[in-house]
Amino acid sequence: MTYMTHLECARCGRTYDADQIMNLCACCGPLLVRYDLKAAAAAVRPADLAGRVSSLWRYREVLPVRSDEHVVTLGEGMTPLLSVRRLGESLGLPNLMLKDEGVNPTGTFKARGSAVGMSRARELGIRKVAMPTNGNAGGAWSAYGARAGIEVTLVMPVDAPAMSVLEAVAVGARAYMVRGQITDAGAIVARSAKAHGWFEAATLKEPYRIEGKKTMGYEIAEQLGWRLPDAILYPTGGGVGIIGIYKAIREMMAMGWLPEGARMPRLVAVQAAGCAPIVKAFHEGREASERWEGAETVAQGIRVPKALGDFLVLEAVRATGGTCVAVPDEDTLWGLQQISRTEGLFICPEGASLVGAARRLREQGWLQPEDRVVLLNTGAGIKYPDILRPELPVLEKDATI
Amino acid sequence: MTYMTHLECARCGRTYDADQIMNLCACCGPLLVRYDLKAAAAAVRPADLAGRVSSLWRYREVLPVRSDEHVVTLGEGMTPLLSVRRLGESLGLPNLMLKDEGVNPTGTFKARGSAVGMSRARELGIRKVAMPTNGNAGGAWSAYGARAGIEVTLVMPVDAPAMSVLEAVAVGARAYMVRGQITDAGAIVARSAKAHGWFEAATLKEPYRIEGKKTMGYEIAEQLGWRLPDAILYPTGGGVGIIGIYKAIREMMAMGWLPEGARMPRLVAVQAAGCAPIVKAFHEGREASERWEGAETVAQGIRVPKALGDFLVLEAVRATGGTCVAVPDEDTLWGLQQISRTEGLFICPEGASLVGAARRLREQGWLQPEDRVVLLNTGAGIKYPDILRPELPVLEKDATI
Repeated sequence: MTYMTHLECARCGRTYDADQIMNLCACCGPLLVRYDLKAAAAAVRPADLAGRVSSLWRYREVLPVRSDEHVVTLGEGMTPLLSVRRLGESLGLPNLMLKDEGVNPTGTFKARGSAVGMSRARELGIRKVAMPTNGNAGGAWSAYGARAGIEVTLVMPVDAPAMSVLEAVAVGARAYMVRGQITDAGAIVARSAKAHGWFEAATLKEPYRIEGKKTMGYEIAEQLGWRLPDAILYPTGGGVGIIGIYKAIREMMAMGWLPEGARMPRLVAVQAAGCAPIVKAFHEGREASERWEGAETVAQGIRVPKALGDFLVLEAVRATGGTCVAVPDEDTLWGLQQISRTEGLFICPEGASLVGAARRLREQGWLQPEDRVVLLNTGAGIKYPDILRPELPVLEKDATI
Repeated sequence: MTYMTHLECARCGRTYDADQIMNLCACCGPLLVRYDLKAAAAAVRPADLAGRVSSLWRYREVLPVRSDEHVVTLGEGMTPLLSVRRLGESLGLPNLMLKDEGVNPTGTFKARGSAVGMSRARELGIRKVAMPTNGNAGGAWSAYGARAGIEVTLVMPVDAPAMSVLEAVAVGARAYMVRGQITDAGAIVARSAKAHGWFEAATLKEPYRIEGKKTMGYEIAEQLGWRLPDAILYPTGGGVGIIGIYKAIREMMAMGWLPEGARMPRLVAVQAAGCAPIVKAFHEGREASERWEGAETVAQGIRVPKALGDFLVLEAVRATGGTCVAVPDEDTLWGLQQISRTEGLFICPEGASLVGAARRLREQGWLQPEDRVVLLNTGAGIKYPDILRPELPVLEKDATI
């Protein structure tokens, strides 16, 4: 069962009944789910989790779904936390780890948000969902929508990655392209929603996606034996993952699931040099970002010119003593080659940008050799097949190599 | 630790020391790994597994790697076993389940065989591995090779799926195409191996890949609370998975991990109508298959004209009261659409062929409405992007839907 109590605005603190259909707060701030953590802590201890299902639903008490019958799952979560020591040693960080979200249904961490978001949508009686998307979220929400029996409509920029379009269409989503950016897609959804009875499920416009994403934080702690790493590097577009991980760690601390006096890991928001509004705001000491003009990067999943939750990302980074790093595409492609060839991990460019960021932070002395550092890889490389163009030698049948 | 004792020829029964580098038996039969199951049963009970790592390495005692330091892992295994009740009800099989191997590193069940095969190769001091491949195995072995620091050389038919080529090249494998079939590729590897010092790791030509695959059987039992389903449908190319599942169930029975008097699930080997040598041999009452000429199917992963382990597949099917089914491509594509749209599972065509097979077996009365049936989906649909060609409406920025 869940210990959810209510929704709370992350901006103004206003609270709402959780059992009504909600998008944003009246002040336009995003809503966060709150729980009775004292009661949850009394009901379940970390040791109780050992025999539970190998998915994010093992953290059932701190997830926002009231009845098990509404849970929509494809087995998402409990992704591996791998030691990547050979890569780490080459960077001067022998205790480097990678959490591989590519091993999720639909191949990215977006499965977490859509599993929990769709479960709660079903529980609240929502029948139709619509969203603008640059790619992976669309593929994931479409899959979970099909599984839930909820109709999904997507609007995507014409340059959205072909693989996500394919996934969405395969599972029967209604999908449209727009000659424009993600913001244009969002405007079309907003204009059209009422006439069709769509619930708008764009990033942070509904309160439950983040609850799925936060389970990455719970898993990292559990997989490290209920200890925390020294730093977590996260590729930041909308930033829901880093906000979620921060929320998870605070929840675990409140429940006493972590050792007395445990230190917060330093959270690092990594962006592409070609689209780095949060990095800019961080270094300028601002509390929110400004829209980034002319956004362009090979890491399409973090090409978000203005994130609704930017102020929460900045808060999480600052509160944990973290930092923000902008990685040029050439360092991302270098990182992709390094991790692929050294560790056999063909990851997505968003994840690969973290390798470049880790190298930089080590060189600057911001990361120390003994630090236990987690790279949060958000997806599988195979979802971006255009990033490499292999040309192989062709042999005749009677050849010998 | 492992309770491995020796290798045994599946054809003639001759035994070999496990701690030497081996390919086939002197009689050309494939070698199987044997364990001291009595000692393993005394050392570990099913309940002991609950808190273990969420990967196939949780079954450490019955895996053939002596030292943990040689384990090469990307977090493979413990894939979800999902209820697909809505699809099942449409087929008259409400207790239908799907084990989703698409949620593995490199997106297919091939990760299991290569993880265990590469671990053991490393342990035995092998430095270079080569194999012919039609696709997914090549991608997987390349990834685990990179992780292990073992050089991998692949030879693939020119029509091998682009995604597997991409994966292999991304992680630094040496790859060649051949204007010919998988058999031609195999001949090139065999001719070239000695000069380069390659260990040949083709299907069943080395004893350890099957040990990785068998863990699918252990997981199905564990995920069902140490009970067995009534039937398991498996898309059969080389057949290593079905041989492995059968081996696993026999091992679990020998260790007393299953309830007293537990009945073997009926194992069903599913092939494509365009390449069905084992189905033909089954219905003709033969003990082995004949090479299938002109093999052609949309399910490329099961386009295997003559499998080295065909006799073991037939033995597993017959010993469990199972059967063999050939599925036309149109039923496979129908199955793909059904499961994608009903359950949000965009799976590979090999897996989709099982939906067609399940429908047929239910219509024939071979499966009963109350049967608990597991479809073993071997991979993610995204690895075959050419199977669908979505065309979407394109909107202008100021559009309303």
